[in-house]
Amino acid sequence: MKNVAITKLRINYKTLEEFKQFKEYGNQELSMLEDLRTNMIENDSESPFYGVYFGDRLIARMSLYTVTEKYDQFFDPPQDYLELWKLEVLPDFQKKGYGQALVKYAQEFNMPIKTNPRINSHGFWKKMGFETASYNMERDLGENPLIWMPKGVSEHK
Amino acid sequence: MKNVAITKLRINYKTLEEFKQFKEYGNQELSMLEDLRTNMIENDSESPFYGVYFGDRLIARMSLYTVTEKYDQFFDPPQDYLELWKLEVLPDFQKKGYGQALVKYAQEFNMPIKTNPRINSHGFWKKMGFETASYNMERDLGENPLIWMPKGVSEHK
Repeated sequence: MKNVAITKLRINYKTLEEFKQFKEYGNQELSMLEDLRTNMIENDSESPFYGVYFGDRLIARMSLYTVTEKYDQFFDPPQDYLELWKLEVLPDFQKKGYGQALVKYAQEFNMPIKTNPRINSHGFWKKMGFETASYNMERDLGENPLIWMPKGVSEHK
Repeated sequence: MKNVAITKLRINYKTLEEFKQFKEYGNQELSMLEDLRTNMIENDSESPFYGVYFGDRLIARMSLYTVTEKYDQFFDPPQDYLELWKLEVLPDFQKKGYGQALVKYAQEFNMPIKTNPRINSHGFWKKMGFETASYNMERDLGENPLIWMPKGVSEHK
């Protein structure tokens, strides 16, 4: 796999405009836009997004957030873990390793990861070492969580 | 809208076989099947699913679960609310009011409802009186929650 530069994205009008190209544009992006417009946040504030640029064009992104040990219902022993969402590569740039590079970047934090992928992406996640979490209705409701664990971590059962 | 009979579904091999026709078949259904196979649950156990039959064919379903006040992060005052997921009508039976009938059934409990709908279904939910919850990253992560509130309930901000 080629060497892909991963950038932590900052919230500004350019980034928020580029986000509109991604299918999973939703409440999160609209709320960032509103916060920027109403000066609730400053231009170039921190965001939970990481991205890949091709030239100066954003072509792939994901969001990462550290859920603290207190709220961990997935891993044993309970610990801080990463929630990963909105992993997406623009259509023209798919199947070139950008999605893999983003997930590998997340795995390099050496923390367990939980994600709730879209239907039909299980082949990709399996290749990246993720496995299906045992379904727990009270915890998962409509989710189909997948988890990845570094050495020494087990699933909480 | 015609009168549609809503049935609380029980977990048995027939129902689990019918679930396979729905797009959003996932960990939850696989886990029910496993629990039935290994006698972890009995045939005809309670399930969180409600459905609509056309003759003896299951043509629509949704899942409902009461989240207790202690975990309520959406409403003011904090209270028990319903989480609604996997609302789905089989393709041949869409646009005939079955989805509406299911959501109305949920609304008749007179509790607030939260759902995290699929992309592109916002028109339907808006018609049913749902509104977008203010995005809260720690709480919502990758979700785009919609909420519905009976009289006297507000959104928690």
